[in-house]
Amino acid sequence: MAELTVNNGVNVEALLAARTALKAAPEAAQFKWRATCKWVNGTHSESKVQGFYGLGQEQRHKTEFSFQADHPEIFASEDQGATPVEFVLVGLASCLTAGVAAVAQNRGIQLRSVQATLEGSMDVQGILGIDRDVRNGYDNIKITFNIDADASKKEIEALVAQSQKRSAVYDIITNPTNVTVEVA
Amino acid sequence: MAELTVNNGVNVEALLAARTALKAAPEAAQFKWRATCKWVNGTHSESKVQGFYGLGQEQRHKTEFSFQADHPEIFASEDQGATPVEFVLVGLASCLTAGVAAVAQNRGIQLRSVQATLEGSMDVQGILGIDRDVRNGYDNIKITFNIDADASKKEIEALVAQSQKRSAVYDIITNPTNVTVEVA
Repeated sequence: MAELTVNNGVNVEALLAARTALKAAPEAAQFKWRATCKWVNGTHSESKVQGFYGLGQEQRHKTEFSFQADHPEIFASEDQGATPVEFVLVGLASCLTAGVAAVAQNRGIQLRSVQATLEGSMDVQGILGIDRDVRNGYDNIKITFNIDADASKKEIEALVAQSQKRSAVYDIITNPTNVTVEVA
Repeated sequence: MAELTVNNGVNVEALLAARTALKAAPEAAQFKWRATCKWVNGTHSESKVQGFYGLGQEQRHKTEFSFQADHPEIFASEDQGATPVEFVLVGLASCLTAGVAAVAQNRGIQLRSVQATLEGSMDVQGILGIDRDVRNGYDNIKITFNIDADASKKEIEALVAQSQKRSAVYDIITNPTNVTVEVA
């Protein structure tokens, strides 16, 4: 039984147990993810992530994660961090990659390596207000996975498809998500 | 003329010059933003950002930015980084914050501080596959801005509204964006 020795570092038993527990207590499945962002100067900001809410109570990451965002020098900025739209690519890449590992574990497929390459196309005539018919965001994002695993090409494609089907960030990007903006 | 002394660190003259230049050469406005992501173990991955394409040629950030993503311990993971959905909040926060600074500069409003607090609600019954009617992504994201500036509440609200109107990440999240996933 090859599956017994498969170890992708994902505790599938715990996830399946959580699924059973949350089915019985759906209020515990209501999560709130949070970030704060402080303007530094120009287009440079610093965001922090630590606390969140879930399983009916306040939770905290082990450490506080902090992120510098900025625009590059060709936009007359200081390039002190990744651009906001690159953060979106990082979220999408990491969501689908974690999903591939979890699904592989559940299907008894040993992964050796997973790499994703992402490219998002954007016509900056949108954000610069040159052409009203050009959207501000990406017109398309392409992700290419290179996966080395004990599985056929078909099984690997099915892993990726199942990861997409359960991906939070893939859903957020491909479907409309409500955003409320307030000034305190 | 108060505007002459306003300095939010945004080079609005350069941005307006870029707008004029790109209006005459729209092919230079076609950008490609990129990221690569490498699976580490379990739900932990490392993403990198450096190269991009724009103004008709390959470009590079001054430095390579790298990001750890993971799931928290309550999902039986090792919490080695922010979650993918938190990266989306960072992208949204930093995009709107940079926009506020740029619009304020253009309108001659001196900013003293800008802070954004974000919270995204998610029912994890979606990603766990418990209930097909629950989406995987956020059901709502709320952003609250606290802005201290030489401006009335109404002017500050108008800054934030204009930033939303030109925000790439706000557009990506609130409207459907096409994502193509391939296995090499």
